[in-house]
Amino acid sequence: MSVVPLLQQALGVLVDTDEDALELARSDRSGHAAAGRPLAIVHAERVEHVQETLRIASATRTPVVVRGAGTGLAGAANAGEGEIVLSLRRMAAIHEVRPDDLLAVVEPGILNAELNAHLASFGLWWAPDPASRDISTVGGNIATGAGGLLCAKYGVVRDAVLGVDLVLADGRLLHLGHRSVKGVTGLDLTALVVGSEGILGVVVGATLKLRRLVPGESCTVTALFPGVRAAAAASAAVTAAGVQPAIMELMDAPSLAAVHALLGLPAPTPGTAQLTIQTDGPAAAAEADAIDAILRANDGVTEVSHDRAEGERLLAIRRSMHAAMASLGTTLIEDVSVPRSAMPAMFDEIARIEREYGLVIPTVAHAGDGNLHPNFVFEGPETPAHVWAAADELFRAAIRLGGTLTGEHGIGVLKRRWLAEELGDDQWRLQREIAAVFDPLGILNPGKVFVPDA
Amino acid sequence: MSVVPLLQQALGVLVDTDEDALELARSDRSGHAAAGRPLAIVHAERVEHVQETLRIASATRTPVVVRGAGTGLAGAANAGEGEIVLSLRRMAAIHEVRPDDLLAVVEPGILNAELNAHLASFGLWWAPDPASRDISTVGGNIATGAGGLLCAKYGVVRDAVLGVDLVLADGRLLHLGHRSVKGVTGLDLTALVVGSEGILGVVVGATLKLRRLVPGESCTVTALFPGVRAAAAASAAVTAAGVQPAIMELMDAPSLAAVHALLGLPAPTPGTAQLTIQTDGPAAAAEADAIDAILRANDGVTEVSHDRAEGERLLAIRRSMHAAMASLGTTLIEDVSVPRSAMPAMFDEIARIEREYGLVIPTVAHAGDGNLHPNFVFEGPETPAHVWAAADELFRAAIRLGGTLTGEHGIGVLKRRWLAEELGDDQWRLQREIAAVFDPLGILNPGKVFVPDA
Repeated sequence: MSVVPLLQQALGVLVDTDEDALELARSDRSGHAAAGRPLAIVHAERVEHVQETLRIASATRTPVVVRGAGTGLAGAANAGEGEIVLSLRRMAAIHEVRPDDLLAVVEPGILNAELNAHLASFGLWWAPDPASRDISTVGGNIATGAGGLLCAKYGVVRDAVLGVDLVLADGRLLHLGHRSVKGVTGLDLTALVVGSEGILGVVVGATLKLRRLVPGESCTVTALFPGVRAAAAASAAVTAAGVQPAIMELMDAPSLAAVHALLGLPAPTPGTAQLTIQTDGPAAAAEADAIDAILRANDGVTEVSHDRAEGERLLAIRRSMHAAMASLGTTLIEDVSVPRSAMPAMFDEIARIEREYGLVIPTVAHAGDGNLHPNFVFEGPETPAHVWAAADELFRAAIRLGGTLTGEHGIGVLKRRWLAEELGDDQWRLQREIAAVFDPLGILNPGKVFVPDA
Repeated sequence: MSVVPLLQQALGVLVDTDEDALELARSDRSGHAAAGRPLAIVHAERVEHVQETLRIASATRTPVVVRGAGTGLAGAANAGEGEIVLSLRRMAAIHEVRPDDLLAVVEPGILNAELNAHLASFGLWWAPDPASRDISTVGGNIATGAGGLLCAKYGVVRDAVLGVDLVLADGRLLHLGHRSVKGVTGLDLTALVVGSEGILGVVVGATLKLRRLVPGESCTVTALFPGVRAAAAASAAVTAAGVQPAIMELMDAPSLAAVHALLGLPAPTPGTAQLTIQTDGPAAAAEADAIDAILRANDGVTEVSHDRAEGERLLAIRRSMHAAMASLGTTLIEDVSVPRSAMPAMFDEIARIEREYGLVIPTVAHAGDGNLHPNFVFEGPETPAHVWAAADELFRAAIRLGGTLTGEHGIGVLKRRWLAEELGDDQWRLQREIAAVFDPLGILNPGKVFVPDA
């Protein structure tokens, strides 16, 4: 029997072969689509469904692509010809919330925002805060090591996961990690799974490390600058001064103009870049004043708000970036990350690449942690060759400045060509061998992260 | 040529065969010693010395045990018959401190306290704070995933390491991780190396994530309780109330009495247990007042100090625990960690084991994160069988309560018998296979972490 009938026999109506659904599973939010259509989607509702799917996939040597909400930006969850899609979106239960232990045990398919809405009623939150939080799943956040706006102050996903339940390619279930704050029993496989983009196993449950909601007011400082370099230098000055904002977002002039146009706001003065900075906690007001002074000393025209709702309104401008870019054409969103002090130099490199390739590259940045999102906008579904050439220059510049290819989106298919360049050949091979220990048949998300053998 | 002459030919005076030095390398601070004496100690001064040592070790199939300051408590750095000791203590340089990027690049042999003294001049610190910080190396802290007093508020070692340079068993040098706050390029091998106890490779350099020194005063609350269970319940009440102390240390009655005796302080009322709690940051005073109220409501007799020096003096009582135990006999220091809410239940289990085995088990705890250090004290160099039997009960109780064998000391040789019990057989085998990818010949710290094949 071939694989789809085997799945149907074992999993019945959970197996979906609807043409439209299969078509949707070919792509994620990057817009990039896999070649061909997958065989079927399994809508797992329990751990056993995941195990059964993987046992059948192993027996038939069929590749499996795990999907959450499909909001990735690197093509890691795109499924094509001959592949099974394993959707975890229906596994969205919250099994446990423990305010006394500051942890929650959840299924992977719950949306980040849904989880945080539930946690808020306990006075708690899970810190990972990707811009996609309203539409992305916790499992997807873990699989990509998703970042967000708050990482400089509140850490990355790796810091916020205590344990995961992982189904291996052959269907065995492992419990990795622990429920205690500390734990050094054996190798830290939980940390290895965070950001592994579906190539090590299927995360079917997670024990999350929570925080208490931050008490007190939150203050927002916005500042306009005569150009992006001035804004980048001002944000570096904030970090260097030792103040720690919760959020520090930078928008360059083309980004700011595009969002203002989308939202029907008055057009900013041409060339104007913007910083939006938020402070929280008991020293929020004092920190906002200190930041205000630093920004003014660095040519910023500033405004300070102590109103939380007004702060959210100001941040909404930054959060509309993705929609603004999509309104201009097809977008390739890049994701380089550099040491914070190298941000002005990275913006210089982007300006150079714009000149050399005759492109405009609207760029926003999580300036508190040095993570830049340069956007390449073009017409039609395929990324043109000269855009890839410009992106290649961008990646090499980031690595040269001590940075990395991807701060929070992952490698997927879109950046696998550059992986060995950053890791070095020895580490690249070692990583492949480690993945093979988890998945000796190579059926888990093949062709993602690593360029397949020729 | 046999291995020692090969090492001498390649590394000259860096190769040490002094009998006393070899004898010292047999044991760490656990008191446990390896069988037999190692062949030689290589005092590496540069990365190339490490690489050369490993090339010779690989060529001759000779096991290598990496040592820093030898302050481990699980026997992971103990070297015996037929083994090369690779000491990194002389590789103690600080290559870079970057206040603007909040990072430092260091060699592994520097002491934690030396590094932090240097960082203080920049207004910075590296948060990992093991009780051994004055005598343990940064490399050792990374190798064990060392914890300390501050983990609940300031995180564990894994959260404070951005990258490591790793020499593999065959002498190749890999650069793992990155210098940016965010980075999800490939598998997170840096996190995998943290806590790997010398079985994956030799850490010859580290890029550390730093914090700004916390501004403002630090307040200290001490509280005496009529028994350890009351103290544990009070500390759990502090966590459950949502206050986050920097430090929350618990001492049971036998511990407190032993330290008072050692320091020549008046003997506490029999049965008295103590909590020592420190708050820091802008809300330190308000938090200390809130904690004071919670402790009083939980039968604590409290005192609050706003003086930093007085706070250090009060904490010195807790920091003298190791010396106090050593003054009583040979000590086996255990290191179980449980979810914070399970701390009172874990103390009940310890009381049960004391009764059943006719033992006194003085116990201190990092109560803010649920990490307990029960001490078994006995005469002579060998841990008696009934002590191991009691420890076995202790481990099983911790695992039953959702906890772990070791919060911060590691598995080493002393706890390898229990590793598979916590991990499960499938995960245990998977971890061994991953280690074999790094070290196919099995020459890196063999017999540590995993029980060797029969």
